[in-house]
Amino acid sequence: RIMRPDDANIAGNVHGGTILKMIEEAGAIISTRHCNSQAGEPCVAALARVERTDFLSPMCIGEVANVSAEITYTSRHSVEVQVNVMSENILTGAKKVTNKATLWYVPLSLKNVNKVLEVPPIQYARKEQEDEGKKRYEEQKLDRLETKQRNGDVILPVINPEPHTVGYSQSSLIHLVGPSDCTLLGFVHGGVTMKLMDEVAGIVAARHCKTNIVTASVDAINFHEKIKKGCVITVSGRMTFTSNKSMEIEVFVDADPFVDESRERYRAVSAFFTYVSLSKEGKPLPVPQLLTETEDEKRRFEEGKGRYLQTKAKRQAQMQQAAQQ
Amino acid sequence: RIMRPDDANIAGNVHGGTILKMIEEAGAIISTRHCNSQAGEPCVAALARVERTDFLSPMCIGEVANVSAEITYTSRHSVEVQVNVMSENILTGAKKVTNKATLWYVPLSLKNVNKVLEVPPIQYARKEQEDEGKKRYEEQKLDRLETKQRNGDVILPVINPEPHTVGYSQSSLIHLVGPSDCTLLGFVHGGVTMKLMDEVAGIVAARHCKTNIVTASVDAINFHEKIKKGCVITVSGRMTFTSNKSMEIEVFVDADPFVDESRERYRAVSAFFTYVSLSKEGKPLPVPQLLTETEDEKRRFEEGKGRYLQTKAKRQAQMQQAAQQ
Amino acid sequence: RIMRPDDANIAGNVHGGTILKMIEEAGAIISTRHCNSQAGEPCVAALARVERTDFLSPMCIGEVANVSAEITYTSRHSVEVQVNVMSENILTGAKKVTNKATLWYVPLSLKNVNKVLEVPPIQYARKEQEDEGKKRYEEQKLDRLETKQRNGDVILPVINPEPHTVGYSQSSLIHLVGPSDCTLLGFVHGGVTMKLMDEVAGIVAARHCKTNIVTASVDAINFHEKIKKGCVITVSGRMTFTSNKSMEIEVFVDADPFVDESRERYRAVSAFFTYVSLSKEGKPLPVPQLLTETEDEKRRFEEGKGRYLQTKAKRQAQMQQAAQQ
Repeated sequence: RIMRPDDANIAGNVHGGTILKMIEEAGAIISTRHCNSQAGEPCVAALARVERTDFLSPMCIGEVANVSAEITYTSRHSVEVQVNVMSENILTGAKKVTNKATLWYVPLSLKNVNKVLEVPPIQYARKEQEDEGKKRYEEQKLDRLETKQRNGDVILPVINPEPHTVGYSQSSLIHLVGPSDCTLLGFVHGGVTMKLMDEVAGIVAARHCKTNIVTASVDAINFHEKIKKGCVITVSGRMTFTSNKSMEIEVFVDADPFVDESRERYRAVSAFFTYVSLSKEGKPLPVPQLLTETEDEKRRFEEGKGRYLQTKAKRQAQMQQAAQQ
Repeated sequence: RIMRPDDANIAGNVHGGTILKMIEEAGAIISTRHCNSQAGEPCVAALARVERTDFLSPMCIGEVANVSAEITYTSRHSVEVQVNVMSENILTGAKKVTNKATLWYVPLSLKNVNKVLEVPPIQYARKEQEDEGKKRYEEQKLDRLETKQRNGDVILPVINPEPHTVGYSQSSLIHLVGPSDCTLLGFVHGGVTMKLMDEVAGIVAARHCKTNIVTASVDAINFHEKIKKGCVITVSGRMTFTSNKSMEIEVFVDADPFVDESRERYRAVSAFFTYVSLSKEGKPLPVPQLLTETEDEKRRFEEGKGRYLQTKAKRQAQMQQAAQQ
Repeated sequence: RIMRPDDANIAGNVHGGTILKMIEEAGAIISTRHCNSQAGEPCVAALARVERTDFLSPMCIGEVANVSAEITYTSRHSVEVQVNVMSENILTGAKKVTNKATLWYVPLSLKNVNKVLEVPPIQYARKEQEDEGKKRYEEQKLDRLETKQRNGDVILPVINPEPHTVGYSQSSLIHLVGPSDCTLLGFVHGGVTMKLMDEVAGIVAARHCKTNIVTASVDAINFHEKIKKGCVITVSGRMTFTSNKSMEIEVFVDADPFVDESRERYRAVSAFFTYVSLSKEGKPLPVPQLLTETEDEKRRFEEGKGRYLQTKAKRQAQMQQAAQQ
């Protein structure tokens, strides 16, 4: 579809969140279709996890986004979907890969939303494809378990913060979940959640560096708990780390089923977003360093640095590998 | 994309206007891409006309709409696009053709919006395809000229109308044209206009028969004049004819460039929409007869009857032809 | 236009904010048209104030909202517009008055947004109409000045609040101002701001009483400062007073032009919203009493009580007057 002014920031760059939402919709369609392809209980595929995603090149207003999706692995209860996004300038014909994402879905019964159904297996062209898929499946399963445990943090407000401190840029928004945000089962689409997360992270980044910012990458996102129609969700973001030219922002999503007395507010999702600051010509700008004050902030800065160096090393290894081929 | 609650009426049937908007977006993308496929002035394809369209089967919330488009004819300054819409129930895998539409676009220069550019010619597999396309091109050109002339009517309000009269159900809405309604050139997308037209026609039909109604078909729509960002558009509808099971509604679109002193309010588009009334089980219901009072209303009723009988005869001829093959 | 699922809460009642947004759009159109009706500099009417508004009966999904607007007074630099909203159930034909609102607009030059233009005077049928309008004009002018002065309060966060305290239900959201939120001048539509205010106030009310709530009335709202495209706006709400069956919520709007270094964050709007809690059958429910803790909270509670009693007295006087006629 054509990118509209509402999909973009004032500099004309399409929000990463808009792209994440399109990716998730494509993933939900293909995996729901697959899981219903054999006779049996009807089901809806629910997003369980999105693997780390890089935004390779910015998309602009007026360009057309082409989204394609393919199922690449099935375990007994989950589906791995690979989604590619290309931006096409229909005036010049130029096409660019904008985004590649891997998503995991789980089929939930339409009749009983707490029942996870079995996934029809796919055929693999080669045995190695199945083995590699299985390896990816095991890895993500482990990572999901891990993040579930360290999911208890809360963002506390700060009064009169200094510029470039963590408290200065931290932000949160609330959103009342409406019918158009939800699947047939009455739960929020993963893509809607990701769009709100990107919105908050973008505001944190812009408050920190006061320039035009764009999403550079999103770390793996795990969806631990479903969010029901009628909930209020609070999406909060705080900066955790800055390198010379990038900012890492941690985002939390908390759901408050306030009309349902029996449930407490709970943490539904958390993730790290990385942003870069761009000049008017679209070149990366240096980013003011994050000033850490408390012990926790210093610890999170070091952890962010670890993730940053690890990603950098991985990318260099890939480039060397590519150069040798 | 997946159909959401906001795309549909309370009975869960997707608005004809939502489908028209998707059709037009697909047509605009493929024709803009084609018109820019040769080196030359960059341009944007503007909708000039939509041929008569039948809604073959209703689409429901939760179904996925698959839209495909193909260029079928090019004249020197215009492109004919054929768009097909399939609805897919991803739970059952069932697919149905919902809609086939033919649209005409004209390439306007990005630098000078009043300049119509030349269209790169397409290759035809067979000579007959070109001849048939040329015939369609001449026919629509004639029809556009004709409708341009009789475009002067105005809908006046009626005080305390009787049920089932024309005045009783006539309706109008106003809409302030915002940035997301517009193309790169700053003019309203044809699809946005058609969606508003369907909304008004649907209110007229529902007021008349007070049941669940769905769009059955849309007569050819000609876009005589562009509508600019910042205009207020008034969309008005009145019932012109009822058969036993259908209602014909005439819809006018007037644009009021109210901050631009130099221009008067003008008629931008007009068209006929046909609706049917459905029971809770989705079966067509009888429609109360339209009570005509003035001479003009009686004349319009007879003209509507003429269109109705003509369409019916055409459809019967097609079915006989199909039966003989 | 037809009310859609996204316009309403889960109980099907249309959000007061949706109605306020429609009212403001109608007011902006009629006053912009009027201010451009004489030759001169083109201008856009900007909302300066909305008088106190009562929501007389709730509107539901599937109903059609009819909005009509009329200019009732003009001063040298401002326009008073009276807007009426009727809800129509198009299946039964039943119509109800939902809302009456009075809005004040000021014409700003399209070329120079800081220049207030002169308003073409309207003709009055009777001299008394002009005199009454002038009285209303003087009154609102005085009230605007007053509220401008007491506009400095800030909502501070509370850690682990007890149920039914002020801190327990207070809420805030941030919103990045996009192109569709803005007028041709690049400033946020008053209606967009009011919709966000109603959203926050509704969440505060729902958190307090954990039931289905609807907007009962909105106190006069003054728009002190324009908010520009690209700003982040923070909308915060806290409960100030509860009677047996109603809740009063104070809402603040702060604009943060964060890419524009030269401007600090500033208070743009503030207002009081009143909500009632409804049972599933639509009957008013008793509301848990607000627990006030600090001196400020107790003072605000008393002030709210004053406003409540004043409104009640005014309404009783009107009813007596009506009964005597």
